[in-house]
Amino acid sequence: MAVSFCHILRFPSPPKTSLFSPPFKSSRIKLSAASSPSQPSSEMDLHNQGRAKFLEFPFVSVPHRALMVNLLSTVENRLGLQLLPCTLPLDVQHCQNESGTAQASLHIRSGQQSSTVDFILGSWLHCKLPTGAALNITSLSAYLNLSTDAPNFVIELIQSSPTSLVLILDLPPRKDLVLYPDYLQTFYEDSQLETRRQMLQKLPEVQPYVTSSLYLRSLLSPTAIMIRVETEEGGAGPMEEIVKNHVEPVAVEVLGLWLDHCACGGREAREEEKAYLKKRDELVKKKTIEIDLGSNFPRLFGPELTDKVMGAIRDVYNV
Amino acid sequence: MAVSFCHILRFPSPPKTSLFSPPFKSSRIKLSAASSPSQPSSEMDLHNQGRAKFLEFPFVSVPHRALMVNLLSTVENRLGLQLLPCTLPLDVQHCQNESGTAQASLHIRSGQQSSTVDFILGSWLHCKLPTGAALNITSLSAYLNLSTDAPNFVIELIQSSPTSLVLILDLPPRKDLVLYPDYLQTFYEDSQLETRRQMLQKLPEVQPYVTSSLYLRSLLSPTAIMIRVETEEGGAGPMEEIVKNHVEPVAVEVLGLWLDHCACGGREAREEEKAYLKKRDELVKKKTIEIDLGSNFPRLFGPELTDKVMGAIRDVYNV
Repeated sequence: MAVSFCHILRFPSPPKTSLFSPPFKSSRIKLSAASSPSQPSSEMDLHNQGRAKFLEFPFVSVPHRALMVNLLSTVENRLGLQLLPCTLPLDVQHCQNESGTAQASLHIRSGQQSSTVDFILGSWLHCKLPTGAALNITSLSAYLNLSTDAPNFVIELIQSSPTSLVLILDLPPRKDLVLYPDYLQTFYEDSQLETRRQMLQKLPEVQPYVTSSLYLRSLLSPTAIMIRVETEEGGAGPMEEIVKNHVEPVAVEVLGLWLDHCACGGREAREEEKAYLKKRDELVKKKTIEIDLGSNFPRLFGPELTDKVMGAIRDVYNV
Repeated sequence: MAVSFCHILRFPSPPKTSLFSPPFKSSRIKLSAASSPSQPSSEMDLHNQGRAKFLEFPFVSVPHRALMVNLLSTVENRLGLQLLPCTLPLDVQHCQNESGTAQASLHIRSGQQSSTVDFILGSWLHCKLPTGAALNITSLSAYLNLSTDAPNFVIELIQSSPTSLVLILDLPPRKDLVLYPDYLQTFYEDSQLETRRQMLQKLPEVQPYVTSSLYLRSLLSPTAIMIRVETEEGGAGPMEEIVKNHVEPVAVEVLGLWLDHCACGGREAREEEKAYLKKRDELVKKKTIEIDLGSNFPRLFGPELTDKVMGAIRDVYNV
C-alpha cells in the first residue's frame, strides 16, 4: 500500500494494503492442494469463487460497494476476453488472520499477451483498529504493459469511520512529465482531468489529502484527486450520499477516460522508449512491494500467510 | 512565470513573472549605448546600479523586503566569487511600462565555469490590477549546472493584497523521482524538508495552494511548500508577523539546506547521466520561457521592451 495511514489513524502501527500492490501473475501461480482448503474443480471455478467473494465487499456501505462493483464490471465488460481468469490460490484471494480481526480480498487478472493490459488488481481490506473502530480500504488499479506508454489507473477509498473517507483517484503517468511535456498535454491537459478534481474539491465536506508517502506523491499525476471527506453530523447518511452522488460519477468518468484513451486508445510505445518504460514500470512495482509488504502485512496476517503471499510475488519477480 | 494567477486574481488576463524565468547569461549580453539610458562607467557599475535597484523592493512590506534581502545576501555571501556580476542592460534590469502601472526588476548572475551554479535569478514585479489593488511578486531562484545533479532552489511570494499571500518554496528536483528513488531519499526524505512544509501548513491562516499550471505541479518536488496565507482582520500587521516569524525562518532553513547539500554538497553528476540531465534542464528552461513570456509580458510592458528581453533570451538560447 503506497498510502500511509499515519495521517488518518494516528496510531503507531498502521495497517497497509494497496492498489499499487504487486502483480500476482495468475497464469504463473500454481494451485496446490495444500494451499487451498476447499479445492475448486477448475481454473474457472477458482476465478468465479474468488471473484464472488471479492465482490461482496462485506464491510462497507451500499453506495461504496455499488461504486466498486460498477468500476470492476465496467473494466471487465470493456476488456472482456483480454483478461485472463484470476487463479490465485483461494487463501491468497481471501485472507483472514487467526483472531478474525483482519480480512482481505485480492482479485488479480493478468492481460492476454495481445492486450495492452498488464493486469488489473482489485482489493479490499477490513481490520479492527485499537480504538475499536473499523478500517476499510477498497481499491481497483489497472497497469498497462509495454505495448503502450499510456498511464495506468488507480482508485482507492480508505474509510476509517462512517463519517471519514479518503479518496485517491488518478491516472498515474508512466513517463516523467517534465521530460515529456507532450505526454502531460495529451493525458492531463487535453483530457480535462483537472475539472473533475476541482468538482470534488469544491464540496464543503472536502479537504485536500496529503499522503505521508513522498514516493506516492511523486508517482501520482498533477491532476490526481487526493481528498479527505469529513461529514461530521447525521451518521453515515451524508457520506453515503457523497459517495453516490459525487465520488461515483467522477470515478466512472475517470475510468471511462482511461478505457477510451489509455487501455483502448491505440497509442503505441516507441521502440526506442521501451527500455525506459520497462525500467520505470519495474521500479514502480518493486517500490510498491517494499511499501506494501514491508511491515504491516506480517503484523496483520502473521508470518505464514505473509510467506505465502511473498512466495507468490517472488515467483512473479524471480527474486 | 510558471505560476498562473487565475486562482488568485480572478481577472481575465493575469500578469505573470517568475523565478522560473529564463537565464539571461550576463556574460553574453553586450551593453549597447542605445539600450541603456544612463550608461554606467563599467561592468561593475552596471551590476551595482542594477543590484541596488533590485534590492529596493519598493512596493512590499518591511518584513517581506527583509526576507528577500536576507535570502539574496545569504546566497551571495556563501557563493562569493563563484557568481559573475549582473551585466544585463539597465533597462532590462529595471523595466517600467509607459503608463507607469507596471514595474519589474531582474537581477541575474551566472556562475563561474568552476562553480556548480548555472545562474541565480532574482526578480520583483509590481502592477496595478483592474480592481485598483496592487499585485506584488518577488522571487529568487538558483539553477545548478551539469557538474552536479542536485536540485535547484526556488522561492516566490505573490501578494495580491496586504492580507493575502501565496508562497512557493521548493528544491525542484532535476531527475524523475520515480525513476531515481535514491535521489528522492537523499534530497527529500533524509533532508526532512517535509517537516518545514508541515510547520507552515499548521498555521490557522494557511491553506494549501494549488497552482493552475500542471507543468509547475509536475516540476516541483513532493515536499514543495505551496500555500496561501489569508489574514482577514487587523490590516497588514498580522501578515507581516507571519512573514517575519514563520515564512522567513523556514525559507532561510530551506535555502541553507540547498547551499549545504546541493550547491556546495560536493555531489557530482555521473558522466553517463549528463545527457539526460542536459536534456531535462533545457526542457525546463524552454518550457518556462514559453510560460513566462508567452502572453503576459507583452501585455504588461509593450512590444518594444518585450522584443528587447526576447532578444536577450534568443541570444542565450540561439533560437
